[in-house]
Amino acid sequence: MVKIVRFHQFGDADVLQLDELPLAEPGKGEVRLKVEAIGLNRAEVMFRQGAYLEQPDSFPSTLGYEAAGVIDAVGEGVTEFKIGDRVSTIPGFSMKNYGVYGESAIAPVTMVAKYPEKLSPQEGTAIWMQYITAYGALVEYGQIKSGDFVLISAAISSVGSAAIQITKAAGATAIATTRGASKKQMLLDKGADYVVVTDEEDLPNKVMEITQGQGANLIFDPVAGSFIETLANAAAKGATIIEYGALSSEATPFPLFAALQKGLKIQGYTLFEIAGDPVKLEKAKQYMYDGLDSGKLVPIIDRSFPLEQIVDAHRYMESNQQNGKIIVTVP
Amino acid sequence: MVKIVRFHQFGDADVLQLDELPLAEPGKGEVRLKVEAIGLNRAEVMFRQGAYLEQPDSFPSTLGYEAAGVIDAVGEGVTEFKIGDRVSTIPGFSMKNYGVYGESAIAPVTMVAKYPEKLSPQEGTAIWMQYITAYGALVEYGQIKSGDFVLISAAISSVGSAAIQITKAAGATAIATTRGASKKQMLLDKGADYVVVTDEEDLPNKVMEITQGQGANLIFDPVAGSFIETLANAAAKGATIIEYGALSSEATPFPLFAALQKGLKIQGYTLFEIAGDPVKLEKAKQYMYDGLDSGKLVPIIDRSFPLEQIVDAHRYMESNQQNGKIIVTVP
Repeated sequence: MVKIVRFHQFGDADVLQLDELPLAEPGKGEVRLKVEAIGLNRAEVMFRQGAYLEQPDSFPSTLGYEAAGVIDAVGEGVTEFKIGDRVSTIPGFSMKNYGVYGESAIAPVTMVAKYPEKLSPQEGTAIWMQYITAYGALVEYGQIKSGDFVLISAAISSVGSAAIQITKAAGATAIATTRGASKKQMLLDKGADYVVVTDEEDLPNKVMEITQGQGANLIFDPVAGSFIETLANAAAKGATIIEYGALSSEATPFPLFAALQKGLKIQGYTLFEIAGDPVKLEKAKQYMYDGLDSGKLVPIIDRSFPLEQIVDAHRYMESNQQNGKIIVTVP
Repeated sequence: MVKIVRFHQFGDADVLQLDELPLAEPGKGEVRLKVEAIGLNRAEVMFRQGAYLEQPDSFPSTLGYEAAGVIDAVGEGVTEFKIGDRVSTIPGFSMKNYGVYGESAIAPVTMVAKYPEKLSPQEGTAIWMQYITAYGALVEYGQIKSGDFVLISAAISSVGSAAIQITKAAGATAIATTRGASKKQMLLDKGADYVVVTDEEDLPNKVMEITQGQGANLIFDPVAGSFIETLANAAAKGATIIEYGALSSEATPFPLFAALQKGLKIQGYTLFEIAGDPVKLEKAKQYMYDGLDSGKLVPIIDRSFPLEQIVDAHRYMESNQQNGKIIVTVP
């Protein structure tokens, strides 16, 4: 028997429970991991709340996108990996079909990859979501280049921090936003060139000041809601705004007049666009391996919880106190 | 003295009046046309109403983007054209600075071009707005290619008709929309492969039927408002929606969930992006000259009014009865 995290109804963190279940066998094209560490994502909080892009087909439901571990079984037709390989999962599958929170996890073989040997399992499960998400937006679609001004909102998140690192690696200027002043120094420490505290400062004015009136030419935002209008006002002519989340509970307007006057491109984006395309995914992996190897990309861990404290780990994520990835370790 | 159309306040068509003014002299980098024909655009209706992207600095204000005529004076430094050249104006200037409705018009030399000899002045003033607008959206930004499904809304307009011609020239499928059934046959006659009557038919369902469940991968829309959500539902994965107007009086939402799930790009666009960039403008001109020459692009004239009936001409445009460009002729 193995402990698997499941929820039997939508709700607060305490709907998560550790159920004792028989060890499952991987099917065709699947592998099974003996899990060592789990990386938490806001997507799982939303999935648990019934507020995510997709919902479970039935209850109880598993959840979880990212885990690192050792392969302990392979399904039919799997030749890419063998028992004993140290791998982590790439969050490009549907949580309706797979959930990796638990002592054991099954994943499609296409969504499993080795992580650099120098990384611990905690670090190995803290890379795919953040780097593929930020890479796809900034490099694959945003075509980031030296000299760009990149506006990164809600930058304290793991994906935000990955975006700062990718921006700096490209020789561009990272303008990070945070609502309150308390996280300003953390963002500067993470490499942001400028930090705008949106509760206290006028974002468009600050961005125009920083960019000498030009505006930000690449904007990476998980907030949406009415904040998109502020972002459009901070945008340069021809800028691309990439929306990759729906953190705001407000309706999101399309900033039509700014878009017409500036020729703005506003793009909805999730990592599935990269993870679901083998060619793009391979480029993303190589970019990430190179960046981790050169030290330009460095995963930041905030703190770890043992699996038994999964409810506390989710509550902690919802408290927005973290500065880096929240990890759950499995003994 | 020459007759120039001006308005002394915002309002209905009857604020337009023919004022007798002294013949103006072109300044540095400008040319003067003896006007033969004027092409009407919805932009001028909105400018007259005070509802356009920009507003006059003061009253009385001139207006008008498109005129064809014969150059009868050139300003300092103008070497590109000489007196006697037959040209038409490219609507890439600001109506705050120039307005071509009248017997005589001044325009910046960069926004003046010869039109093919086989075209009449009426046709020569019916090409730039529609073809550059549709070219920029579909070819320059939309990267239209054979096999694409292009959804063209409010397709009965001149720009919509130009988009149908450009879509067909690219070997793509043109799906045109119109609100009422009365214009369906006109759109089929103009070359649309499919026409969806949005007052009677469910647009996303029809588009999914036509595209065998794929959706439209390029959408060209001047309406905005809540219609953008219908368009997002008719869009294919990775589709580009180009918004080039604000005909709806409703607020425009950003279709966030569809955008995230499908990876939609929604782009604000005006012809100024092409007209304001000499390299892009040159490519657009060449595309248009080639298309007019080969017969793949054919400007469609609806009807002409004499200059004295400029008020009736504007009223006619606002009645939405036209099928093609409305022209004002100057004796």
